[in-house]
Amino acid sequence: MENKLFVYNTISRTKEAFEPINPPLVGMYVCGPTVYGDAHLGHARPAITFDLVFRYLQHLGYKVRYVRNITDVGHLENDADEGEDKIAKKARLEQLEPMEVVQYFTDRYHINMNQLNVLSPSIEPRASGHIIEQIEIVKKIIEKGYAYETNGSVYFDVVKYDSSHHYGKLSGRILEDLLSNTRALDGQDEKRNAADFALWKKAEPEHIMRWPSPWSDGFPGWHMECSAMSCKYLGEHFDIHGGGMDLLFPHHESEIAQSNIANDKEPCKYWLHNNMITINGQKMGKSLGNFITLNEFFAGSHSSLEKAFSPMTIRFFMLQTHYRSTLDFSNEALIASEKGLKRLMLAMEILDKLKPSEVSTTDISQLSNKCYEAMNDDFNSPQVLANLFDTVRFINGVNDNDETITADDLQKLKVIYTTFVIDLLGLRNETNTDQIEIIDSLMTMILNTRNLAKINRDFAVSDKIRADLNKIGIAVKDNKDGSTWSFGI
Amino acid sequence: MENKLFVYNTISRTKEAFEPINPPLVGMYVCGPTVYGDAHLGHARPAITFDLVFRYLQHLGYKVRYVRNITDVGHLENDADEGEDKIAKKARLEQLEPMEVVQYFTDRYHINMNQLNVLSPSIEPRASGHIIEQIEIVKKIIEKGYAYETNGSVYFDVVKYDSSHHYGKLSGRILEDLLSNTRALDGQDEKRNAADFALWKKAEPEHIMRWPSPWSDGFPGWHMECSAMSCKYLGEHFDIHGGGMDLLFPHHESEIAQSNIANDKEPCKYWLHNNMITINGQKMGKSLGNFITLNEFFAGSHSSLEKAFSPMTIRFFMLQTHYRSTLDFSNEALIASEKGLKRLMLAMEILDKLKPSEVSTTDISQLSNKCYEAMNDDFNSPQVLANLFDTVRFINGVNDNDETITADDLQKLKVIYTTFVIDLLGLRNETNTDQIEIIDSLMTMILNTRNLAKINRDFAVSDKIRADLNKIGIAVKDNKDGSTWSFGI
Repeated sequence: MENKLFVYNTISRTKEAFEPINPPLVGMYVCGPTVYGDAHLGHARPAITFDLVFRYLQHLGYKVRYVRNITDVGHLENDADEGEDKIAKKARLEQLEPMEVVQYFTDRYHINMNQLNVLSPSIEPRASGHIIEQIEIVKKIIEKGYAYETNGSVYFDVVKYDSSHHYGKLSGRILEDLLSNTRALDGQDEKRNAADFALWKKAEPEHIMRWPSPWSDGFPGWHMECSAMSCKYLGEHFDIHGGGMDLLFPHHESEIAQSNIANDKEPCKYWLHNNMITINGQKMGKSLGNFITLNEFFAGSHSSLEKAFSPMTIRFFMLQTHYRSTLDFSNEALIASEKGLKRLMLAMEILDKLKPSEVSTTDISQLSNKCYEAMNDDFNSPQVLANLFDTVRFINGVNDNDETITADDLQKLKVIYTTFVIDLLGLRNETNTDQIEIIDSLMTMILNTRNLAKINRDFAVSDKIRADLNKIGIAVKDNKDGSTWSFGI
Repeated sequence: MENKLFVYNTISRTKEAFEPINPPLVGMYVCGPTVYGDAHLGHARPAITFDLVFRYLQHLGYKVRYVRNITDVGHLENDADEGEDKIAKKARLEQLEPMEVVQYFTDRYHINMNQLNVLSPSIEPRASGHIIEQIEIVKKIIEKGYAYETNGSVYFDVVKYDSSHHYGKLSGRILEDLLSNTRALDGQDEKRNAADFALWKKAEPEHIMRWPSPWSDGFPGWHMECSAMSCKYLGEHFDIHGGGMDLLFPHHESEIAQSNIANDKEPCKYWLHNNMITINGQKMGKSLGNFITLNEFFAGSHSSLEKAFSPMTIRFFMLQTHYRSTLDFSNEALIASEKGLKRLMLAMEILDKLKPSEVSTTDISQLSNKCYEAMNDDFNSPQVLANLFDTVRFINGVNDNDETITADDLQKLKVIYTTFVIDLLGLRNETNTDQIEIIDSLMTMILNTRNLAKINRDFAVSDKIRADLNKIGIAVKDNKDGSTWSFGI
């Protein structure tokens, strides 16, 4: 292919040509969910964004190892190092073992991801399953002199690090500002400086999730899990690290610091970040209390929703905006997405039935080029969709005999349309969900016709209908009140 | 309830009244799959057996924490302590990271379990995620003097253990026989006695899966993971430990030895074991090369299969035999299961449409009692099914006006039938899979009728059919070759 993929690298703030470290292999790490509640739009966006990236890289022929973690321990509240572990808190409230909460919400997350047609990552490691690997990195950082122990907890020395490296180069923050702006928090006295972050936390007596370590029975700091798991499965320096923009600071910034000290390397070559979801212009998040879960979208069971929206409508809605732009939720936007998706899918059915002609009134290879150009421009899915809607107009034109297409071009068009709509954008037809209702309605129509035939004493017709139904596995039973039907003969 | 649940306890070789340690809580641990290949009947049987147990205990009002592990490391070939780790071997063959193989087959296992309507366990821990917990138990056993280190590996001293405890009490084996019958194996010289088993193995340089420990970079012995994970999530002494009979020795026997030394306790109160699957009377297993995967059953893609068999047919087939009996595979038996399942499901549809009468010609509460009696007799699912088929005869009798039932009894019968068929046996209607084909066939019939009307110039009829179809979301397009239809207006 002549066109080359360009990706926006957050750390260089430019679009760069994508050149993997060891082609055709690509290693990609994406921060997955913290599993202490149902997934909402804020979880769907990174999942769908990096699903698009995963699908496209594989389509280009790369052999991608995609690691997306499950954070099941160590994510502290307020994104500060103090406070209660979110999962342990939920568990105590419900009198459950934390891992039972984790299992429950992980299972539900997987169901949601399947509904959204998000492919499984190659490896889905859990933070709690990699405590040893995290402890080993903490040891290394202590040995190199960039971490210190206080009362059984270990902190990363950000001030020392910043004197030789640049803490803030990813997020654009400046250490001086961080030091002066940070408010005092409980336990802060354990740190030498307010900007230092925990690598290991000693567990309080009531803390359920804990493991032995050289420093205390405790648990790893939040930023440590991604350093440990990305390094274990992708190596010390890999291709792509992705996640939501809300993770830029302190999470990804601190991962960079940890890697630079532990491995003397940047963790990855390209940093990719999806932008946030807003609702009426406000950030959406659990702590703000204005989030709508995916299950609520699918069921229409939230007061802000005018109706239910299907998983594919949500997926389409996300793909209609470039992943680096903010995405504002509204009922109107979702209703528009629903219509757009329907048009796209209907065109695929029409495409299947088009009749070829002698000449084509459009240039099919141009369409293909435009779609690849859009994808190569930092995964520009809204531009891909715009191109596809031009194609929908053409398909409808052929169907209405206003345009024509040759047999060869028709074949090409089917391949391109399917490649982009189904394989790359990952959309799928959702009609099956209501099939039993449709069958029921069709059966009512057919049995009415048969009943009419019987009234007219046209028994040849009524017997034929029953026989035809029997052939496809539907039994009809006549009784004095009319006819009933059931599956199975 | 007057009837009490009795379960067959392998260790006492008797049926015992089931009395949980801390009612209403019940802790149950079941050995799950080793994820280095697709699941076959031998995986389906314990999954379905303990799914039945899980469902019934919950139905009785117990609050069950069901832990079923994923063995993703440390299961050595030949069930001996030497040889190559199965997962690492597969990974090297395919040039994959072991955890990528694990993820791939774990995802496929989960899909199969969903197809079989096996409920998710409360916690599904992975062996690789609990290395620290395993190391801690090994340390305890060394401290107590029942394990020794040789060249970085640690072995359990079975001979010393047997002098004060009874190694073999679960499986009925006798140590002297084990010592004289064991053939010499590579690396056996590291052990003091042939019957000793590994608690920790030093990794060879080429071994990919390895973790640091006080003794070597290595990996835990196979039996250690279940001791560590059951203890972590259910406590040192819990209610039920289940698994296949092939795990009795050495796996469960060694778990008992480990617990008795580490915790001075038996690991559990009740040991439940499902029997094996045979194929033409021979044991089924990966090492014998005669296993058929579940996916092959569902697709009918194995030379031993005459046709495809659905997930519910497999489930029904398993439930027709008591879990402690061997189950012999044959096409005939599966075809019979398929028919039986169909009868059971059809009766449910008929039941929904029955008309009540003044009197009942059968005693409904007797049916209920019989079903509970069967379940209380060590989960006797074949007896439950026999009772349900008696009921099917009665339901058909009412439908044919040979029997009668009062409105009150009809309501009771619906509850009992649904409780046992759907909730406890976990069977479900599978007709939806072919719905799109049925719709297509029905549409062909309807469009033929409409076409006939048009030929007869009966346009009122043809227009009404189109309008009726539009109402249920089906578009009809007429063209010179006839009519086509599609979803979506």
